Amino acid sequence: MIALDLIGIGTGNPEHVTLAAIRAMREADLILLPRKGDEKSDLADLRRQICTDHLPDLSRVVEFDLPRRDGETPYLDAVNDWHDAIAGAWKAAIDTHLPGGGRVALLVWGDPSLYDSTLRVAARLGLKPRVVPGVTSLSVLTAAHAIPLNDLAAPVVITTGRRLRQGWPEGADTVAVMLDQGGAFTALDPTGVTIHWGAYLGMEQEALIAGPLAEAGPRILETRAALRARHGWIMDIYLLHR
Amino acid sequence: MIALDLIGIGTGNPEHVTLAAIRAMREADLILLPRKGDEKSDLADLRRQICTDHLPDLSRVVEFDLPRRDGETPYLDAVNDWHDAIAGAWKAAIDTHLPGGGRVALLVWGDPSLYDSTLRVAARLGLKPRVVPGVTSLSVLTAAHAIPLNDLAAPVVITTGRRLRQGWPEGADTVAVMLDQGGAFTALDPTGVTIHWGAYLGMEQEALIAGPLAEAGPRILETRAALRARHGWIMDIYLLHR
Ligand SMILES: C[S@@+](CC[C@H](N)C(=O)[O-])C[C@H]1O[C@@H](n2cnc3c(N)ncnc32)[C@H](O)[C@@H]1O
Ligand SMILES: C[S@@+](CC[C@H](N)C(=O)[O-])C[C@H]1O[C@@H](n2cnc3c(N)ncnc32)[C@H](O)[C@@H]1O
Repeated sequence: MIALDLIGIGTGNPEHVTLAAIRAMREADLILLPRKGDEKSDLADLRRQICTDHLPDLSRVVEFDLPRRDGETPYLDAVNDWHDAIAGAWKAAIDTHLPGGGRVALLVWGDPSLYDSTLRVAARLGLKPRVVPGVTSLSVLTAAHAIPLNDLAAPVVITTGRRLRQGWPEGADTVAVMLDQGGAFTALDPTGVTIHWGAYLGMEQEALIAGPLAEAGPRILETRAALRARHGWIMDIYLLHR
Repeated sequence: MIALDLIGIGTGNPEHVTLAAIRAMREADLILLPRKGDEKSDLADLRRQICTDHLPDLSRVVEFDLPRRDGETPYLDAVNDWHDAIAGAWKAAIDTHLPGGGRVALLVWGDPSLYDSTLRVAARLGLKPRVVPGVTSLSVLTAAHAIPLNDLAAPVVITTGRRLRQGWPEGADTVAVMLDQGGAFTALDPTGVTIHWGAYLGMEQEALIAGPLAEAGPRILETRAALRARHGWIMDIYLLHR
């Protein structure tokens, strides 16, 4: 029998782990750490550091190669195939390292419910995981800027860069944008819009920019390109308000 | 000089505090705990317990009476007056207990950016706080049900019960509803809608219900009324999906 824990660990600051996350890590018989290829090794390093900080020893921590997503196939097909492949990689690692069954844990970036595939991958293996909630990159963004997410009693839309290119989403004057490959906000009329942007939130490389979109937007594009070139990868998120 | 920390502490489970929250609590010269009146004393108890668990002594923890909101005045006016009154209460407590200045901390339910007034109250005192992000009730809800917040690459709207009564919000097939005084979802056509509901999340009293809205909705209304009567107060949140 396999029990599965999906443990939210925050998004870069090792102190954003919760006590519940630490407890769940310690209860695990096997912790699987994905290896994603060189450019994102900073992220793997954080997971490794959290294990080193909180586990008595690392004998139960095992790394496995995360399959790569096919960039050619249409988006949703590619993602579904990719989730199948990840499920296969989990299963192989579990069969190898926990042949008699036990409790497996995965450390999930941020909160496991927010734009993350681990719950979908777990479903493919017929596992109903225990989920330990984590601090999201959206909370780290608003904390870094010391701003509320919402206007008083007003709604918020959380969406992706891909969607934002179709225009300002209906239904809210505040929009949080994640998974932007870069500059989706250039598709918007910037008049009257402010942006609060953050990259590498919670990490040493953290960068923040805020201001009217017309003025801050070009600065963000420039900074983003420079940081990406310097570090080899980037993760950023922003809040738009009109 | 006063430095202010707003520290997210999660929404009921004392193990949902982060290491950063514990560190910030320990760095504070004064921790202000709001007293909200009897019905919500469970919430004050949690804050007190977190202090007891993580502080060497409680000499720097001070309780103050949170002013009550005027239920007669129109909603936004009442809230603004209320925030003014809270700012006054903070200032009085700080002047009394930290006359020489120092670092003041408030323990904020969930994450300080999400439907919370402390950032707005801090602004009234001209203070730019350091914010420690926390686990939101929304993450605890999705974790308890072990479900993703969003469909693959799809947007989500976060809104209030008050707004939901105006109908399904534009722009998303997933809607998270907070601050519902009870049953706002009855304003919707339930056809094809599923609900994941949770009350007292992370606490001993935790209750969860999920299912098609047509069937689960009435059960939620009944359960909510019974729980509210039993405990004297309730906090609940839900995710709708169509
Ligand atoms: C696959 S999603 C995972 C989100 C994660 N589950 C969470 O709760 O934040 C990755 C996206 O999250 C955002 N993100 C995650 N970590 C971040 C960080 N440290 N700084 C900035 N953005 C981050 C970016 O928008 C990125 O494209
Ligand atoms: C004033 S808002 C504060 C939200 C908080 N800042 C957060 O991050 O979750 C209060 C609302 O949050 C939700 N909530 C907070 N704690 C909760 C809990 N333990 N169980 C269920 N809902 C909760 C409810 O919708 C409630 O009406």
